[in-house]
Amino acid sequence: MGLEKFFQPSSIAIIGASRLPTKAGGVVVDNLKKFGYGGKIYPVNPKADKIQGLECYPSVKAIEGDVDLGVVVVPAPVVNSVLEECGDKGVENVIVLSGGFSEIGETEREDELKRTAKERGIRVLGPNCVGVLDTYSKVDTMFLPRYRMATPLKGKISLLTQSGAVGATCVDWAARQKLGFSKMISYGNGADVDEVELLQFLKDDPNTDVVMMYLEGLKRGREFIEVARELSAEKPVVVVKSGKTKHGAKAVQSHTGSLAGADRIYDAAFRKAGLLRAEGIEEMFDFSKALSRQPPARGNRIQIVTCGGGFGVMATDKVEESGLVLAEIKEERKERLDKHFPEHVVVKNPLDLTGDATPRMFETALRESLTDPGVDGVIVIFLFQLPNLSYSLITVVEEVLEEFDKPVLGVSAGSEFSAMHLHLLEEVGLPMYSSPERAANAMTALVGRKER
Amino acid sequence: MGLEKFFQPSSIAIIGASRLPTKAGGVVVDNLKKFGYGGKIYPVNPKADKIQGLECYPSVKAIEGDVDLGVVVVPAPVVNSVLEECGDKGVENVIVLSGGFSEIGETEREDELKRTAKERGIRVLGPNCVGVLDTYSKVDTMFLPRYRMATPLKGKISLLTQSGAVGATCVDWAARQKLGFSKMISYGNGADVDEVELLQFLKDDPNTDVVMMYLEGLKRGREFIEVARELSAEKPVVVVKSGKTKHGAKAVQSHTGSLAGADRIYDAAFRKAGLLRAEGIEEMFDFSKALSRQPPARGNRIQIVTCGGGFGVMATDKVEESGLVLAEIKEERKERLDKHFPEHVVVKNPLDLTGDATPRMFETALRESLTDPGVDGVIVIFLFQLPNLSYSLITVVEEVLEEFDKPVLGVSAGSEFSAMHLHLLEEVGLPMYSSPERAANAMTALVGRKER
Repeated sequence: MGLEKFFQPSSIAIIGASRLPTKAGGVVVDNLKKFGYGGKIYPVNPKADKIQGLECYPSVKAIEGDVDLGVVVVPAPVVNSVLEECGDKGVENVIVLSGGFSEIGETEREDELKRTAKERGIRVLGPNCVGVLDTYSKVDTMFLPRYRMATPLKGKISLLTQSGAVGATCVDWAARQKLGFSKMISYGNGADVDEVELLQFLKDDPNTDVVMMYLEGLKRGREFIEVARELSAEKPVVVVKSGKTKHGAKAVQSHTGSLAGADRIYDAAFRKAGLLRAEGIEEMFDFSKALSRQPPARGNRIQIVTCGGGFGVMATDKVEESGLVLAEIKEERKERLDKHFPEHVVVKNPLDLTGDATPRMFETALRESLTDPGVDGVIVIFLFQLPNLSYSLITVVEEVLEEFDKPVLGVSAGSEFSAMHLHLLEEVGLPMYSSPERAANAMTALVGRKER
Repeated sequence: MGLEKFFQPSSIAIIGASRLPTKAGGVVVDNLKKFGYGGKIYPVNPKADKIQGLECYPSVKAIEGDVDLGVVVVPAPVVNSVLEECGDKGVENVIVLSGGFSEIGETEREDELKRTAKERGIRVLGPNCVGVLDTYSKVDTMFLPRYRMATPLKGKISLLTQSGAVGATCVDWAARQKLGFSKMISYGNGADVDEVELLQFLKDDPNTDVVMMYLEGLKRGREFIEVARELSAEKPVVVVKSGKTKHGAKAVQSHTGSLAGADRIYDAAFRKAGLLRAEGIEEMFDFSKALSRQPPARGNRIQIVTCGGGFGVMATDKVEESGLVLAEIKEERKERLDKHFPEHVVVKNPLDLTGDATPRMFETALRESLTDPGVDGVIVIFLFQLPNLSYSLITVVEEVLEEFDKPVLGVSAGSEFSAMHLHLLEEVGLPMYSSPERAANAMTALVGRKER
């Protein structure tokens, strides 16, 4: 059976729904309504007639219509009997949000859940998870109060995560960064549906172009590598694998009950499967932003354009440290650029347009760099504290990005004024970074993508 | 002669002042007024009677009163004659903002400037710099439009920088982060006053507790190490040295005309002098924030407290990778904690209070950890997406920080809701970081500080 109904159900039953908006079972109902989920919502709770204005059912079996997705928020000891009822009702997809299974040593309870799922033909996501957020279908089973989080823009990045808290934080963080998001999938203990099947699903998902992944451990290593390799041949996959160190691995075991395993084995497996490993969530976002908005680089020759010399130096250092190289400026390009720029601009790489830089100068520098067959990608540093960077820069960047099929990454740091322009640049498709080091690092993701 | 008047002048003459708010000489006058500088401002320009409502003088010599500080914004070829006039007037401190000296190969012009300074007994800051910003005296010679930047809060962190653009960006970035700032000193080519004298000055400056430094090259290496060692014995110094790589070093030469030199020599020198090296500006800020707000750690045994298991794992990895160790929870502390927490909270390190975590639970965890003589520092992770973290957490953290003399660093990431709480926590003195990796990394600065 498929996983589609976890993401595009026509109807959802919340088993353990609550009138109290402070309880998980109340939050799920509230969130589905406020997010704008368009299907039917069936709260299930034997002690209530109505929940948040919706008719409430004593059991899932009492619901007249079909139920595409069951969301279970009852205490762990009751989960199995609820699952049986879902089977009776013919519900084929169930998300078990409840904790209290293998992660606290209750492996027998988890085995029972697995058996029931198998016997009754139910696909289970969880237990011990926050389930699904889908910006297309407006499904949201994260039982976290909506006022505490923002909703990300619709986009093409999907996140697969073993940790629910990481999932929630990433969703909220993506909203803050205006990073377009498709799905957040938290699978917790992965008792039934695991990362292997979910990666397979994301491979075929038209709403997913880039996959982010937070992983603590794997049960089916061989199958994982196989599916991951197929997926990453089509879509970039950025993975954070925690539990790298001795004590980190120990912490993993008591968190999701996974075995973290030797880190170098994971590292080799990821490389084999073509996955891009990130050192933490910030780097995962940095990589994914570049991969979702810019084309891969055909080589590793980078042109740096800046209006502050110091930033040019820092970008150069990081480019070289990351295994990229500075593109050479051949005599022909140098002559053309010399004609365009005032005398105090010395044409070289990094190209420092100095504090007088205008949008026009940036335009020339970008066009000439991107036209040059010896340049594979450009890092451009805008310091909006300088006097001549006007709004026209936004249009310039938009035009240049449309015209060329080479990656450009931007850098800007500062207060409200800079932040506003940074967002405008991101809206025309330029991924922006808060430091030259982060931009250069993200460029390696685009170069690595090509090299596969 | 001293450097005090660069920072606390009773009167400032802006030589090359302009009526146009778009020109550097106009921006400096405007900024001094708007920042609230309380001393006398004398615009100097032979072609104007009044500038921005202030009486304008044809030359610095025509000013009746004493001039403590001259700020020179005239074209490079005229700078020397202006300096001569400053000498005639008895101005002892002059900031030369103008570029067009050794950084573009005009070494003779710079030598002439040096000679004049020496002969006339003038201390010169610059040329090719943005000068000084001082949040105490409200001196601001950065010729950058005020609407493009924010002003940082008064504080005790001072920044010494060879690059003016780095200085401007850091000031603006500090404002955004609400990081208390004392002075930004941009010395450009350092023709007269250089980093050695400026470090000496900052050592004795009562308004400076932590020194940040952006460096591209050194002329007086031996003296630098000597002064830096004395300074860092009293106040932490965090340095970014760019021009680390082959091409980075080349870029340095055409930026400030410095010789970057072999990076491993700098690295050894910094270590010898007790300076803390940061890999980039973001890390420099991360370190400085911790050092300015938290006490040094007496050892490297760290307790991690979290409400999300995945974040605990990531913090653990980074703690171990950074050469810190997880503090051991002895039986006694374990028993006490067990009594306080619900059954599903397993007392260990990292201590995962789980998604139900309340401010009271965090209070207990923090108090017990900080009381334990086996704990040298605490990293605490707050996920404000979770339902039970209320405002009372702010008060709890404030009380705990006041009570104990051990460092605590916080982690939080998310959208507006999280950002607001993050700022409230920072205001009661807890340095906050956007990822567990960055907090663990910043903790090494506090541990390193002690080890000296």
